[in-house]
Amino acid sequence: MKLTDQITSIPLFQGLARKQYEDLAMIVVDQVIPRGKMIFSQGDEAVGFYVVISGRVKVFKLSPEGKEQILHIFGAGEPIGEVAVFAGEKFPAYAEALEESRVFFFPRPAFVDLIGKNPSVALNMLAVLSRRLRKFAGLVEDLSLKEVPGRLAAYLLLLSEQQKNAIDFELDVSKNQLASLLGTIPETLSRILARMEKEKLIKSEGKRIAILNRKGLEELSVGERKLP
Amino acid sequence: MKLTDQITSIPLFQGLARKQYEDLAMIVVDQVIPRGKMIFSQGDEAVGFYVVISGRVKVFKLSPEGKEQILHIFGAGEPIGEVAVFAGEKFPAYAEALEESRVFFFPRPAFVDLIGKNPSVALNMLAVLSRRLRKFAGLVEDLSLKEVPGRLAAYLLLLSEQQKNAIDFELDVSKNQLASLLGTIPETLSRILARMEKEKLIKSEGKRIAILNRKGLEELSVGERKLP
Repeated sequence: MKLTDQITSIPLFQGLARKQYEDLAMIVVDQVIPRGKMIFSQGDEAVGFYVVISGRVKVFKLSPEGKEQILHIFGAGEPIGEVAVFAGEKFPAYAEALEESRVFFFPRPAFVDLIGKNPSVALNMLAVLSRRLRKFAGLVEDLSLKEVPGRLAAYLLLLSEQQKNAIDFELDVSKNQLASLLGTIPETLSRILARMEKEKLIKSEGKRIAILNRKGLEELSVGERKLP
Repeated sequence: MKLTDQITSIPLFQGLARKQYEDLAMIVVDQVIPRGKMIFSQGDEAVGFYVVISGRVKVFKLSPEGKEQILHIFGAGEPIGEVAVFAGEKFPAYAEALEESRVFFFPRPAFVDLIGKNPSVALNMLAVLSRRLRKFAGLVEDLSLKEVPGRLAAYLLLLSEQQKNAIDFELDVSKNQLASLLGTIPETLSRILARMEKEKLIKSEGKRIAILNRKGLEELSVGERKLP
């Protein structure tokens, strides 16, 4: 397959014009990495990002004792190191080919130059990422609405208990931290709090929580009750 | 608060340099939208995107019967219409202020011009979106690993049943479609299939599935067994 056609099939570059794929093909470096070879090391200057065309690439950190902690295994179509490259940071981890892998390397200077001459490439990439983000946020919300209300109820009951069963108390973490703690995103947490209010289980204002129906929260925490 | 400081606090623009915030402040249009006023309509040219500074904005479609279908309610810090603007499409829905809301409007032509002169603004936005995407993909995976293996097992058993309990059959949808059907993303589906193989429950190759342990799949589908 021609380089340009390969690039067309990379999700990060969806929806570009033919001419823009050709421009990307002009700056790409087509590489075959043998099994076991390191692609980049933690702390290396992020001189460009990679997209896996075939094979598998392991991204990992090393503990102070030298133990390997795998962050992710990347396969066909997935970009590697792009966050560090876009942000102008160093690579935060190691990348090594798990098997013979073909990767496309996009050097940062040429890529920046391309975007400067052709802002619509960047706009299209922003569109692709924004759209995926919307979709993922929807998925997180759908999945969270099953699990998170129960965990949130358990957390609120715990906080109340720690304060001699107070019915009125303050969250001891920010809403962003609480969302992370519960395995969801702040937007979904806000919506769950709003639903709990609508069900008259709690009243919330900023970080202040008042428990209106302790029994209802207990039922929610053990899965005997669901939020509508 | 000064315009520039307001822009600094918008998540989409995290991590820019001071000068870049000032450049954005030069193109922004600061608007106060009264309650109930339409901000844009479906099919309108996407001439720019909005970021909510305060208040709440409802984004909705209308059914052929004129019934309102709310897609999302946006609050402080959240962008509206940016996908259509980045992709150069028309607005796919209506946006209306639910209460008096302050929004920042970024006109597309000025924004494109700014990126052309200053590609690092686009790179930084790509970094912000990529980083959030990574985080969301991790959340989707964490949440999916609880629910999706059981649903996938049930689906495979159903396919087998439809083919006279065949132990060897082909998926009737693409892996992307199957991921959507199960409420996850293709990357996570691949990992779950790999784990099922490792547990010797199935063997999969492309769209071809062989059932190695029907009882194990049945246990997984009713929640009596978990994937390690």
